[in-house]
Amino acid sequence: MGNGEVFAYETVGTAILILMGAGVVANVVLKNTAGNSGGYLLINFGWGFAVFAGASVAAPSGAHLNPAVTLGLAVADKVGWGTVPYYVAGQMLGAFIGAVLAWLAYKKQFDTHDDPRGTRGIFCTAPTVPAPAWNVLTEVIGTFVLVIWVLLSPGAKAAQDGVPQFGNSALGYAGVAFVVIGIGNSLGGPTGYAINPARDLAPRIAYAVLPIRGKGGAEWGYAWVPVVGPLVGGLLAALLYLALPV
Amino acid sequence: MGNGEVFAYETVGTAILILMGAGVVANVVLKNTAGNSGGYLLINFGWGFAVFAGASVAAPSGAHLNPAVTLGLAVADKVGWGTVPYYVAGQMLGAFIGAVLAWLAYKKQFDTHDDPRGTRGIFCTAPTVPAPAWNVLTEVIGTFVLVIWVLLSPGAKAAQDGVPQFGNSALGYAGVAFVVIGIGNSLGGPTGYAINPARDLAPRIAYAVLPIRGKGGAEWGYAWVPVVGPLVGGLLAALLYLALPV
Amino acid sequence: MGNGEVFAYETVGTAILILMGAGVVANVVLKNTAGNSGGYLLINFGWGFAVFAGASVAAPSGAHLNPAVTLGLAVADKVGWGTVPYYVAGQMLGAFIGAVLAWLAYKKQFDTHDDPRGTRGIFCTAPTVPAPAWNVLTEVIGTFVLVIWVLLSPGAKAAQDGVPQFGNSALGYAGVAFVVIGIGNSLGGPTGYAINPARDLAPRIAYAVLPIRGKGGAEWGYAWVPVVGPLVGGLLAALLYLALPV
Amino acid sequence: MGNGEVFAYETVGTAILILMGAGVVANVVLKNTAGNSGGYLLINFGWGFAVFAGASVAAPSGAHLNPAVTLGLAVADKVGWGTVPYYVAGQMLGAFIGAVLAWLAYKKQFDTHDDPRGTRGIFCTAPTVPAPAWNVLTEVIGTFVLVIWVLLSPGAKAAQDGVPQFGNSALGYAGVAFVVIGIGNSLGGPTGYAINPARDLAPRIAYAVLPIRGKGGAEWGYAWVPVVGPLVGGLLAALLYLALPV
Repeated sequence: MGNGEVFAYETVGTAILILMGAGVVANVVLKNTAGNSGGYLLINFGWGFAVFAGASVAAPSGAHLNPAVTLGLAVADKVGWGTVPYYVAGQMLGAFIGAVLAWLAYKKQFDTHDDPRGTRGIFCTAPTVPAPAWNVLTEVIGTFVLVIWVLLSPGAKAAQDGVPQFGNSALGYAGVAFVVIGIGNSLGGPTGYAINPARDLAPRIAYAVLPIRGKGGAEWGYAWVPVVGPLVGGLLAALLYLALPV
Repeated sequence: MGNGEVFAYETVGTAILILMGAGVVANVVLKNTAGNSGGYLLINFGWGFAVFAGASVAAPSGAHLNPAVTLGLAVADKVGWGTVPYYVAGQMLGAFIGAVLAWLAYKKQFDTHDDPRGTRGIFCTAPTVPAPAWNVLTEVIGTFVLVIWVLLSPGAKAAQDGVPQFGNSALGYAGVAFVVIGIGNSLGGPTGYAINPARDLAPRIAYAVLPIRGKGGAEWGYAWVPVVGPLVGGLLAALLYLALPV
Repeated sequence: MGNGEVFAYETVGTAILILMGAGVVANVVLKNTAGNSGGYLLINFGWGFAVFAGASVAAPSGAHLNPAVTLGLAVADKVGWGTVPYYVAGQMLGAFIGAVLAWLAYKKQFDTHDDPRGTRGIFCTAPTVPAPAWNVLTEVIGTFVLVIWVLLSPGAKAAQDGVPQFGNSALGYAGVAFVVIGIGNSLGGPTGYAINPARDLAPRIAYAVLPIRGKGGAEWGYAWVPVVGPLVGGLLAALLYLALPV
Repeated sequence: MGNGEVFAYETVGTAILILMGAGVVANVVLKNTAGNSGGYLLINFGWGFAVFAGASVAAPSGAHLNPAVTLGLAVADKVGWGTVPYYVAGQMLGAFIGAVLAWLAYKKQFDTHDDPRGTRGIFCTAPTVPAPAWNVLTEVIGTFVLVIWVLLSPGAKAAQDGVPQFGNSALGYAGVAFVVIGIGNSLGGPTGYAINPARDLAPRIAYAVLPIRGKGGAEWGYAWVPVVGPLVGGLLAALLYLALPV
């Protein structure tokens, strides 16, 4: 697979991931929706099946959809460093497109929402107790679980063609969906589980630039946390992977 | 597979899809039911597993169950245009039969419901904020996700026998069920995710003609939205599929 | 597989099914439990994964666990009529054992529940609107969906060894679990979806004979409905199966 | 696979299991979390997908993650007794590490919780109605279901390489996740379903030794129940397995 294909499939897959992920939060947060106040489990299943849909579509590029996954696979020597920029560029572009599409799908609900300053949470994460060092740690731990799973699950280990196919297992990409739902259920409480720099940063940019009715600030002061934490988590997972007896 | 078989299996599969899909809404909406007020996640799992059951049964015809899927597959040259009418006819007939069966299964609950004019939502969709152009857009986006998944997921690409078998993946038809649950969770907020012309139009006709106690109008003015939106979404997905490097 | 093995595995599998199925209702209904008032979706996932666990364990006998499934498979010529009595005997014995185990697991919760007369619903089903003919029809429709799925899903059609293995599909017995969760979500509203004569009758007998603190009557007048309805539904599914072009 | 590898993978897998399992309870119980009051079904899906993630990662050692599973497999002659201590040591160490990581991930939430004495339930189980003999029985029954499933499910029976791979089935480790969710839904009401001595004892030790703000006692008087009950349940499952005709 060439770099152009990697870029194309990562863009499409990440766009679907963020369209559906931002979409489920919009559905629960915004007032005039069928899913208003639908609850935390609904949000987590929404993000999980967003991963499933986006990853299935991006199977040809290995369906990273996440710079922390790409970093972990590069450190573990599963993907070449020269391809990493194409992965990340596609992920960032796709995440931006997905955020725009989610806003368009819910345009009339944004326009009629009664607390427009509170809609930032549809696009990017925020801590329930602000404490940057601890927030980073929570993101490190959550992303570590995701990336060690990608590296060690039977599907990933069976990959044989240069691009790790953690969807190769019999479960397909339902496996990674279940892990993401699990991380959301279990480790999403303190920071809203970004566990993916592109998932947080690109929609935050979209929130800042889109003409969303009555919007508040983009909280740039927190923006580094869901970038640094996931990258460190992915790195640590790769180091453990390399240290384990195989 | 001949056209008669396509018609037969699409009829049976779509009947089960709509029986169970309309059924879960009836269970949540109607007063004297075990699932009354069961919530949005219950509805979405209900529709998702309705897709799973209906699609499994219709595996011999490729389990489209949806004119927007059939259109996308025809544009992508995965199914012949001459077979399209048999798919759509089976889907429309099946959806009508399924709606009638759902009404019969809940007959006594319809007869004892205290707001009979509000039972139309069991059969067909309605927007939370009426705005036809935006409602169409939401249906376009939701259906685009469904059909691009059908075209690009590993199971679909592995199909080799003329009729795309997106259930061929190891997940079987659980994959499409997870995607539909995801679309419901994420993109169902504004319009109730018809994402299928047959799913909305045929049950709307059933609602109009069945002797449902105290029923209100069928809202024909909105009926074109969940037909046009899904067809455009399926078409756009097929065009993207054809444009992607393979 | 001999008749003794069929009897043994159907007994163990159905015991696990009813232990877990009655258990989840106990967990939601009884006062002093972690799952008290856990909701309808919790109950349906409970029954669905009860089917998954019980069916996996009973794979050697084909995992019918349900006289309506056995009847449908016999009519469709997938299982010999001479083996049917061993299936049904194992199913009835297992369902009785499972009900006793569920009572023992929740013994202290039964003993401290503040409405002991209302615990019959843990063991057997009841209609929300009593109307025997319509209640039978709802059970016919629900069971029809289950048995037509068993007969037509790809796993079932792939069976090659005399005993239909509807778990042979890649999903294993998760497929039938998803269908049962779907039937519960969608068609369980009016009658509580027995869809299985053994599931209702044997635990009703257990309720009648066990020394449950403060229990009420067993409602024998309704007991025929969740026996006759499912058997008719299984029969109709087999007849449709035989009529479809293959 | 050598004993060192068994120890390493059981440690990592059980650490992820308990990190995510304790994490989901923290998310629901602690005040300043996104999942506060998220409900019983959320907790059960959290534990189930915790099993999925941990077991996938520990596939090389057979993914026991539970001394009761190891005991059952040893009695059933599926794993050598000489390896049992390495399994149990890894499970205990991993469970302790997982509990510490869950505390760290939720550190600021522990520090701001308004009922710090009530946080023991994040680490270990407690009965809703204290009655040791009956509590043991409930744990015996729940663990029996888990271990008989491990022994009899098609994946387990297909294992051919000395270490039983109950993830070998097409479902991978989603199968055991579904069973654990099911046991939680159905049999978790009276005692909180430890069904695993390491899952309860090691986090209880962690709770006792960690400097958790304002913590209460560790309830050592109950600690033997979720050790003895699961071990007896695993033993009984192995005995039934050996008695069944194969």
